[in-house]
Amino acid sequence: MKAAVIGLGSMGWGAAVSLLRAGIDTTGCDISEEVAARFRDAGGGFAATPAEAAKDKDVILVFVVNAQQARSVLFGKTGAVAEAELGCVFVLCPTMSPAESEKISGDLVAAGMRVIDCPVSGGAAKAESGELTLIASGANEAFEAAAPALEAISSKVFRLGETPGTGAKLKMINQHLAGIHIAAMAEALVLASKEELDLEVVYDVITQSAGNSWMFENRAPQVLKGDYAPLSAVDIFVKDLGIVTEAATNNEKPVDVPLARVALELFTQTSQAGMGREADAAVAKILAGRSDVKLP
Amino acid sequence: MKAAVIGLGSMGWGAAVSLLRAGIDTTGCDISEEVAARFRDAGGGFAATPAEAAKDKDVILVFVVNAQQARSVLFGKTGAVAEAELGCVFVLCPTMSPAESEKISGDLVAAGMRVIDCPVSGGAAKAESGELTLIASGANEAFEAAAPALEAISSKVFRLGETPGTGAKLKMINQHLAGIHIAAMAEALVLASKEELDLEVVYDVITQSAGNSWMFENRAPQVLKGDYAPLSAVDIFVKDLGIVTEAATNNEKPVDVPLARVALELFTQTSQAGMGREADAAVAKILAGRSDVKLP
Repeated sequence: MKAAVIGLGSMGWGAAVSLLRAGIDTTGCDISEEVAARFRDAGGGFAATPAEAAKDKDVILVFVVNAQQARSVLFGKTGAVAEAELGCVFVLCPTMSPAESEKISGDLVAAGMRVIDCPVSGGAAKAESGELTLIASGANEAFEAAAPALEAISSKVFRLGETPGTGAKLKMINQHLAGIHIAAMAEALVLASKEELDLEVVYDVITQSAGNSWMFENRAPQVLKGDYAPLSAVDIFVKDLGIVTEAATNNEKPVDVPLARVALELFTQTSQAGMGREADAAVAKILAGRSDVKLP
Repeated sequence: MKAAVIGLGSMGWGAAVSLLRAGIDTTGCDISEEVAARFRDAGGGFAATPAEAAKDKDVILVFVVNAQQARSVLFGKTGAVAEAELGCVFVLCPTMSPAESEKISGDLVAAGMRVIDCPVSGGAAKAESGELTLIASGANEAFEAAAPALEAISSKVFRLGETPGTGAKLKMINQHLAGIHIAAMAEALVLASKEELDLEVVYDVITQSAGNSWMFENRAPQVLKGDYAPLSAVDIFVKDLGIVTEAATNNEKPVDVPLARVALELFTQTSQAGMGREADAAVAKILAGRSDVKLP
């Protein structure tokens, strides 16, 4: 099997080195020359453009950030589709709106390609260790053809049927909850600070109580340490909660998502305050500032 | 040791039978005669008033619903304090605002009693099996004197120092998160329904992903089954999120809690629609109705 990974950011990098580790001949493609050099040092091939990366590949994993970038690396002037073999399997990993995912998948199929709608979950560390969770939908034969690559990058694959867009829909639901839970964690810790509770004790009690969430457990330590080096950035949730509120309202009969709207507003304000590239838990700093609370 | 339990609702009942099971001589007190008969059948004593229940007891556990009821069963005409021995340990289990908890604790100490500020977590089933989590603060000697009773009703005791009110503060933070997470679960499942996702699949994926919360895992099944028989009722979160927003705003420099405000509004609307005594997950029905979504 020959694979290409387009977009070697934290998630794509992890997937690409996991493919190499599984013995799969892998070509990377990224706009950064420094990343190119690093991937060659790791034993991979490197292509200057998506089109070049796509030549003679069985599977192409797309790890850019959003739908616009995905469309560009697939269908742009030096896009992958221009040089990909007919029947090549495209694995679409960005978090996109269900509508965009369906549209791009449809265009790939029209160009003679096979597609897996494949948003991922797990973060950079799990990507690097080949233990991502894949929330995937697509034709069975596409899954079969891509199986060794999917196995190399993941520890868990949710197969959600044959319709592209279903993976994107479920990822959107996950991000809805994840985003609200991060903002709720921030709000709770700011209130706890104001009440002069010891935040380490709060963490200890909450993580063993009914108020716990995956995100509280994972992100509260960043607030407690005052360390906002990004694992996942504020701007990711500006994007992903934007997808949620747009999908909810962009409907003949809109869905009311008041919590998602408030959380999106908080992440947007955090980004506008210049913290868009900090860790998503930095949303706590906006709430703290507004409430005259000093966090660690 | 001789104990009394005032208020034999689902939580108080569970605590009272756990005390009996541990071999502690326990008297119950409740306004319902049917509950009185049931507790006698279970091997307990029964008193018609809190004052009568308080006679010759070492420990008195208060399991009424809110601060107003607590004040009434303690200091009212037939309240427990009238007949309690000096030095008797009062274990205050209702979820109250930190300010109310501090006030009631202070009044008990002024009357010569000892106090543990002791909100609980875990639900009716854990109460019945003697496995509550206690989020407690109070004087060390009060903990020592009440130890056999606390051990009988709980599997985990968080000791949060000697100051009454600290337990109430931490419980408030827990309820802040728990309430928002239930409302977020409801919002997510309504959006998922609109997107025509299979809710059983959504449950399976989310509970294994970063969008998970204790409340999602525990409450989403009620929505999936369409069964809103109360384990914990909507009105509990109307009360508890009311405590949160009041504590947040009732401050010289108020704390901004926009997510708690939205969640409180959703629970309040659910209650006003006549579902206050249904399970808290019924908040999903309000959102579904508003968004023209049919839930199971």
